[in-house]
Amino acid sequence: MKHWISFLDHSPSAMAEWVELAMRVKRGESSEPQRALKGRTLVMLFFNPSLRTRASFEAGMARCGGHAVCLNVGGDAWRIETRDGVRMDGDCAEHIREAAPVLGRYGDLLAVRTFAAMKNAEEDARDPVIRSFERFAGRPVINMESAAEHPCQGLADWMTMQEKLGATRGRRFVLSWAPHIKPLPRAVPHSALLAAAAAGMEITIAHPPGYALDPKFLEQAAAWQRAEGGTVRVTEDQRGACRQADVVYAKSWGATDWYDDPTAQREDFARRGDWMVTPDHLGPHTLLMHCLPVRRDLEVVSAALEDSRCVVVDQAENRMWAQLAMLARLAA
Amino acid sequence: MKHWISFLDHSPSAMAEWVELAMRVKRGESSEPQRALKGRTLVMLFFNPSLRTRASFEAGMARCGGHAVCLNVGGDAWRIETRDGVRMDGDCAEHIREAAPVLGRYGDLLAVRTFAAMKNAEEDARDPVIRSFERFAGRPVINMESAAEHPCQGLADWMTMQEKLGATRGRRFVLSWAPHIKPLPRAVPHSALLAAAAAGMEITIAHPPGYALDPKFLEQAAAWQRAEGGTVRVTEDQRGACRQADVVYAKSWGATDWYDDPTAQREDFARRGDWMVTPDHLGPHTLLMHCLPVRRDLEVVSAALEDSRCVVVDQAENRMWAQLAMLARLAA
Amino acid sequence: MKHWISFLDHSPSAMAEWVELAMRVKRGESSEPQRALKGRTLVMLFFNPSLRTRASFEAGMARCGGHAVCLNVGGDAWRIETRDGVRMDGDCAEHIREAAPVLGRYGDLLAVRTFAAMKNAEEDARDPVIRSFERFAGRPVINMESAAEHPCQGLADWMTMQEKLGATRGRRFVLSWAPHIKPLPRAVPHSALLAAAAAGMEITIAHPPGYALDPKFLEQAAAWQRAEGGTVRVTEDQRGACRQADVVYAKSWGATDWYDDPTAQREDFARRGDWMVTPDHLGPHTLLMHCLPVRRDLEVVSAALEDSRCVVVDQAENRMWAQLAMLARLAA
Repeated sequence: MKHWISFLDHSPSAMAEWVELAMRVKRGESSEPQRALKGRTLVMLFFNPSLRTRASFEAGMARCGGHAVCLNVGGDAWRIETRDGVRMDGDCAEHIREAAPVLGRYGDLLAVRTFAAMKNAEEDARDPVIRSFERFAGRPVINMESAAEHPCQGLADWMTMQEKLGATRGRRFVLSWAPHIKPLPRAVPHSALLAAAAAGMEITIAHPPGYALDPKFLEQAAAWQRAEGGTVRVTEDQRGACRQADVVYAKSWGATDWYDDPTAQREDFARRGDWMVTPDHLGPHTLLMHCLPVRRDLEVVSAALEDSRCVVVDQAENRMWAQLAMLARLAA
Repeated sequence: MKHWISFLDHSPSAMAEWVELAMRVKRGESSEPQRALKGRTLVMLFFNPSLRTRASFEAGMARCGGHAVCLNVGGDAWRIETRDGVRMDGDCAEHIREAAPVLGRYGDLLAVRTFAAMKNAEEDARDPVIRSFERFAGRPVINMESAAEHPCQGLADWMTMQEKLGATRGRRFVLSWAPHIKPLPRAVPHSALLAAAAAGMEITIAHPPGYALDPKFLEQAAAWQRAEGGTVRVTEDQRGACRQADVVYAKSWGATDWYDDPTAQREDFARRGDWMVTPDHLGPHTLLMHCLPVRRDLEVVSAALEDSRCVVVDQAENRMWAQLAMLARLAA
Repeated sequence: MKHWISFLDHSPSAMAEWVELAMRVKRGESSEPQRALKGRTLVMLFFNPSLRTRASFEAGMARCGGHAVCLNVGGDAWRIETRDGVRMDGDCAEHIREAAPVLGRYGDLLAVRTFAAMKNAEEDARDPVIRSFERFAGRPVINMESAAEHPCQGLADWMTMQEKLGATRGRRFVLSWAPHIKPLPRAVPHSALLAAAAAGMEITIAHPPGYALDPKFLEQAAAWQRAEGGTVRVTEDQRGACRQADVVYAKSWGATDWYDDPTAQREDFARRGDWMVTPDHLGPHTLLMHCLPVRRDLEVVSAALEDSRCVVVDQAENRMWAQLAMLARLAA
């Protein structure tokens, strides 16, 4: 059984095929998702809120004649205990060892959103909750953003770059850290990094001191890059990196050192206001990307988001097409 | 591209056609909605709660072989900033300039519920949020109750009167203010007024001093009425007006002068208990209407709601049929 | 019009037929639900949270080409007043006398979840809310757990026992009380008891003093049992009862005497820790059942839930099949 939990579980060439399929589906040249998903049910379980994810999966399934069931944990549904060996005398009424296989019985595919707890960076990198669903669901499990990765976003990002650049191999990708008001998880930057690496791009990560991504994902990206003859470069010179880029991917994330020191994190955000991306950061043909939701005039200046080089709405639309390609292959 | 945002954007004759279509659909004499909506997706975005609206749209789309995606802003989905030029360092994670076009990419039609803020009557009358969706969605936008109007309700009300009275031209419509425990927005009375005017009815609005409706809608209703040779009359003599009516439409709304003085509003409600509609207000063939939800024994006495002259459940049912006709025309 | 509100409204032989149909549907030997539910809409109204119920109904309807609309009262939708003759000047914006018939107009079937208030045991046993929906909806009403019963769970339990035991007549069913952290309603134990009685099983209920089930359901179970030549036995000797059982159904519920004394209830739970079911309670072929959600290491020890004798996930899956059989018969 195939799952879609981590870029690390799949080969770049296999994922490149999904991206190609997604582009054919978008152009109306393939009905593979319709054939694979008609009459099928996707159960989606949300531990955290969502706009694009929920709407793109639900609209995509409907478009193919399938159906998506959306459950909000702790809202519509019971809170779920995900740790093993815990006497359940607290807030959680249900354990993942029951919830996962039961939902697997109702649906053909199971998708889960479960953000990083942001208490312990190593535990977040192990991705315990989504891996428990993988273990117990008895069905293909799809990661709708977990503690460590957001691979559906990464796949849509890859597709968007392919679509806009024609080919991605050797093109310059800059992942550019941005300030915020609260420390966000690193799932999106991890997946953007892995997508760019799997797509064969030259990668630069620009961030202030203290905001390194998880070594596990940096190493995998570098390994894929070495196989292509490229490198993954890390810099604090944001403007220098962005100016030469084919793609600037703006994104905020928190520093793991300050997981238990929100004051220090907030002060550092306040000091880093000049990391906000502006039209001046971009070359004349540089694409501006962001996973959304984006905080205007904080992460990215409004003028940049309204610029013709900005492709964030296409990125969001491509979530639907990339996910349909992936679901079709998982359901096959 | 056609939208369904305001009665003021459409001609009475065009809307009368939708009402006729809705009645044919209800009687099973037209499958136009099935043809137009099969395989289509309606994305519904709720900034406020709903029972009839959500259920009638979702059941209606399903009935036609289409699908409705329901998103609750601030619940399932991120809170959305609707003002321009705001540095987004507060509660809202997402801006309407991204949210609207993204949802437009996932669906064929976009419906939005966004109640009046009730801080500033003039701003509510301009209907800034739904007009931003119109501007940015890239798809037909449907108003599921905005700051200024509830045109889906108005359309269903028109259909209900047509259905029950045979013809509406020249019949006597009384919009009768009712007390409540909190000041409600004026979107429903505005749309009921406009629907009755577009349907060519003789209109009387009965309310205590201080509860005038927005001049913009009063003037449009009067203009449509003059074209028919009729008038829009405003009175404080509720009983006198109701006794001769073909239709009494009971509805509570708040006084704009007390938007920032809840105590004065509450005291006035308490003083106006005798504005509650009772069976004695109605003539032997007067229809009693209300948009629901209705507060029993506060806005309308229970005995009136259980009377055979009360058509509130038909009104609510007609939401589904009127909306299907409207959706079919927008999607065509 | 048929409803599915209480085991007491149906004969054991009629319900046995539904169970047989559910098993044929599960094995792919009957397409009766597809024929009955294609293009139909089930409106589901939740006054309380749900995982299995929501997902199993929604996935089941989708599987048959129908659609389920899910509404959360007090969340997505308005709070609903269910008492008659109340001046509605409080939290509830809507009355069941309007909400029920309106939802009946949008859907073909109406399902309601409304937990026991647990203020007054006699009132809970009369099941006022679900009976009001029955009275006002104008459509078949389905009980998705009410104050008094959870008949969809009971039907799935019956089907699971039939499936696992081959035949149920004369087999030994033990309903075994379990401790918890808060007093749960008695709807599930009532329905499990009635299902086992209707299935012709020998019944023992094991609970500490003070936890008697409602006399109305005990008497009906005993009456069905007498017709079969059996009895309903109540005991405090949990281990003795379980050891000889074909089925142990573990379940916690609260003592009606302590509805207004949470401290006494909590202290009694704490004293009854040894009522937690362990693998030692079970004979070599005893099936372990629970309706889920189950609190691990509080109601049932983890090792028992992971034992091959535990069938809780099959029970949950069978919710979908049993409900499809029931819906097909109600919609016919």
